[in-house]
Amino acid sequence: MEVVSLVNGCSGNTAGKVIICKAAVAWGPGEPLVIEQVRVDPPQKMEVRVKILFTSICHTDLSAWKGENESQRAYPRIFGHEAVGIVESVGEGVTEVAAGDHVIPLFNGECGVCRCCKNPNTNSCEKLGVDPTKSTMILDGKTRFTTADERRQPIYHFLNTSTFSEFTVLDSACVVKIDSEAPIKKMTLLSCGLSTGVGAAWNTANVEAGSTVAIFGLGAVGLAVAEGARARGASKIIGVDVNPQKSIIGKQLGITDFINPRDSDKPVHEKIMEITDGGVDYSFECVGNLEVLRTAFLSTYIGYGTTIMLGIHTSPKLLPLHPMELFSGRKVVASVFGGFKGRTQLPHFAKQCMEGVVKLDEFITHELPFDKINDAFQLLMDGKSLRCLLQI
Amino acid sequence: MEVVSLVNGCSGNTAGKVIICKAAVAWGPGEPLVIEQVRVDPPQKMEVRVKILFTSICHTDLSAWKGENESQRAYPRIFGHEAVGIVESVGEGVTEVAAGDHVIPLFNGECGVCRCCKNPNTNSCEKLGVDPTKSTMILDGKTRFTTADERRQPIYHFLNTSTFSEFTVLDSACVVKIDSEAPIKKMTLLSCGLSTGVGAAWNTANVEAGSTVAIFGLGAVGLAVAEGARARGASKIIGVDVNPQKSIIGKQLGITDFINPRDSDKPVHEKIMEITDGGVDYSFECVGNLEVLRTAFLSTYIGYGTTIMLGIHTSPKLLPLHPMELFSGRKVVASVFGGFKGRTQLPHFAKQCMEGVVKLDEFITHELPFDKINDAFQLLMDGKSLRCLLQI
Repeated sequence: MEVVSLVNGCSGNTAGKVIICKAAVAWGPGEPLVIEQVRVDPPQKMEVRVKILFTSICHTDLSAWKGENESQRAYPRIFGHEAVGIVESVGEGVTEVAAGDHVIPLFNGECGVCRCCKNPNTNSCEKLGVDPTKSTMILDGKTRFTTADERRQPIYHFLNTSTFSEFTVLDSACVVKIDSEAPIKKMTLLSCGLSTGVGAAWNTANVEAGSTVAIFGLGAVGLAVAEGARARGASKIIGVDVNPQKSIIGKQLGITDFINPRDSDKPVHEKIMEITDGGVDYSFECVGNLEVLRTAFLSTYIGYGTTIMLGIHTSPKLLPLHPMELFSGRKVVASVFGGFKGRTQLPHFAKQCMEGVVKLDEFITHELPFDKINDAFQLLMDGKSLRCLLQI
Repeated sequence: MEVVSLVNGCSGNTAGKVIICKAAVAWGPGEPLVIEQVRVDPPQKMEVRVKILFTSICHTDLSAWKGENESQRAYPRIFGHEAVGIVESVGEGVTEVAAGDHVIPLFNGECGVCRCCKNPNTNSCEKLGVDPTKSTMILDGKTRFTTADERRQPIYHFLNTSTFSEFTVLDSACVVKIDSEAPIKKMTLLSCGLSTGVGAAWNTANVEAGSTVAIFGLGAVGLAVAEGARARGASKIIGVDVNPQKSIIGKQLGITDFINPRDSDKPVHEKIMEITDGGVDYSFECVGNLEVLRTAFLSTYIGYGTTIMLGIHTSPKLLPLHPMELFSGRKVVASVFGGFKGRTQLPHFAKQCMEGVVKLDEFITHELPFDKINDAFQLLMDGKSLRCLLQI
């Protein structure tokens, strides 16, 4: 098979050829990523090869990179799932996107034909839904990445996307075309964090004008919930975080009240009960901590409050709720990718973002060149960045 | 205060007077009920005194009578919450019902003015929602029942209703008028079991035509779920019970498939997965057992199945679910009184029952005179009756 080596992006006709390009490869749990040449195979049947323009890092990349869940480890691997790019070429049978299209990779795919995809009330997908245990393409169980040296060692995929690479191959169910007029750099945010947070407020909770909201954990996802709730007209948006800096950025993004549990003279849920006359309509857990989840639950109005879980829990512990506690009327639901069906709904959400329905600029706190990716990881671990965009 | 002693129901003008009449009094946990004369005070402000015509027994009466939850014990007490009756007199300020109206007592009241009552998505009520720990009237924290002897010992109320008595006093939020043309005896069923089951299918789950349902526990509530699902056009209604007799009655009430876990060669959820091609849309837990709850959860379709909890759990154990299990799209919600707002929605449901939308006759398996109430308890404990109506 013909091979094209690229130093600086796409040059000439690469369709059907193996591309040799730069990627950030993880060789072991928590080991610094290595920027190196990799081979990227052409897209196979119903696959798409995308030139990634910008990628960023989310906490799911962090925990996978650290190998927190042993059963999900696979190395060498290319992480990354929040990105934006341009279609370089498509495999047999792909009709919905074509070379040159601006696209967003979808870690939570939408095959369009399974029982989930046909149901309007879920954005799960039997075939290509989010699955951190998967590390190869579903067509043949193989990887499209190999090392550029003579060993041709397979390099594993991650979350259907593997965006820490100049080029990546995705199933066509995991790619959505967006308006070519959309500001492409900012569209990176829609690939995970922004959609997850805004969608949790809009689709999962369906926050109404005048309702009250509490958000636990003001990272990019939590702040996107705030922005989604603000756009819906929530009357009170309470942010809870142990990092006092989050009060400042929070107030630019819809947060009306800030509680730092470390400064609070009483349990956080009691404080929230007080300032909302009995509890919020919706609470969002964006941390992935069972104690915080319980506090979020107790912060809602007992008659009908809903807690939306967004944080990931790696430990095998049980939900910290007694069955009878749900009989009061309180609910607990989980939200993945904000309940958005990626291929069906993201183009419209991108348009809404272009129209300024939700703010984007505030979420991009840092920008770095691709080869500084380990610094970007550090910024996120230190709680200093919301999103650090890496230009590839 | 004037006192009227009644041997056989209402005679002459009793309004404003203390009524001495028959009631079944519980003097201690699990002790046989004693049919004896009690004094029933006139209704106070916003209260209603009702002559009970028929009452029946539900598992909540059983577990309360046994004193399973120590913190809820209060004796002597008049149990009973599923009944139908005629308003004898009303207290000051009551305008929605008048003497002679046919009414259904509501253990889950609807005050109409609290934050819950104003919200269309819950049937909780801050003021008069179901509360097994409450044993007195909310107006003054006193009872309207006393012993007929000279001690005038207060007799406690139960679940806002205390229907094991010829006369009872209820808050006006706990009474709903129904069409006087409705077959009054059968309307007893609407006071708890039938509404709880049918409403769980209609209001809480919102079962659609063609959807699939599994019901765990085929007592009156579980069978009412089946009847509700049948009325909605569910394509498959799987009943699960260890009592083989339930297969027969079940098939008269919508059950299309019956599984007896004791006869099953594989775990019940696997069997349900098989016959529904991946799991039911809705599962209903009508037992109050955590293992059954987990099986019900695992029996739903992983992408969007919903488990509706109806069974009561007295033990202080946690929900048998890992937070991440909800991220697949499965949901767990609880249902009280089938999600019906009693005063707002029950008159219409009574009309639907009169029109034959759901079957009623099959639920009334036994009828006994009031003084055989202990036999009626035994029938329920032995799993022999669905509902045994007691004529008072």
